[in-house]
Amino acid sequence: MNKIEHIGIVVKDMQAAKNIYELLLNTSVYKTEEVPSEGVNTAFLQSGPNKIELLEATSADSPIAKFLEKKGEGIHHIAFDVTDIEAEMARLKAEGFVLLNDKPKRGADNKLVCFVHPKSANGVLVELCQEVR
Amino acid sequence: MNKIEHIGIVVKDMQAAKNIYELLLNTSVYKTEEVPSEGVNTAFLQSGPNKIELLEATSADSPIAKFLEKKGEGIHHIAFDVTDIEAEMARLKAEGFVLLNDKPKRGADNKLVCFVHPKSANGVLVELCQEVR
Repeated sequence: MNKIEHIGIVVKDMQAAKNIYELLLNTSVYKTEEVPSEGVNTAFLQSGPNKIELLEATSADSPIAKFLEKKGEGIHHIAFDVTDIEAEMARLKAEGFVLLNDKPKRGADNKLVCFVHPKSANGVLVELCQEVR
Repeated sequence: MNKIEHIGIVVKDMQAAKNIYELLLNTSVYKTEEVPSEGVNTAFLQSGPNKIELLEATSADSPIAKFLEKKGEGIHHIAFDVTDIEAEMARLKAEGFVLLNDKPKRGADNKLVCFVHPKSANGVLVELCQEVR
């Protein structure tokens, strides 16, 4: 794991949240992207080598809508940057971690991603992500 | 905000959590520290320029014990590294953010810290931290 690539934060109202995080981090949102397969709108802010990813549901059956309903706004996941996602997935699987996908899938921000079940990591949803070359 | 300094994760059993995060991040805990004023044991793991801080309550009235009781294990806060914590506190206060302390206080890992109320940041407890020089 090379670094924390980003922290995903579930928000109700993307425009309001953008305003808040731009003030908080004293920087502008540098990218927005919809990921229709996940039912989510994303907005990214940079903090040095790391990013904050704001997540807003675009449909009622999006995992983000379900999270919001159950837990309210807040931190959704930690994503770690990895060099070789398939090798990391194999390593973690061999160590007994439960992965939420068998193969890397395409995520926002030009990434291949895989999630580790929160029950494997003290209630924390962990994402592995590898830049698509 | 220079970078994500660390992510704080509340755990029930520090020894079990250390084992899990050492396997997950493929690195060893490099420091443990008790912060009696906060009723907490901490353990740190490095991920490139960032850290994971595991948090275990040492008393029933610790804020960490209360978090665990209310929400269970999981992510507790995001800490951002700042160069001048007093200047950042003044800037955020002027922008309308609610700070949980008036002056920086001493935290773990040789830091001056200040917390921003989660209601100011979409349910996220944000910590500012400045290395003590």
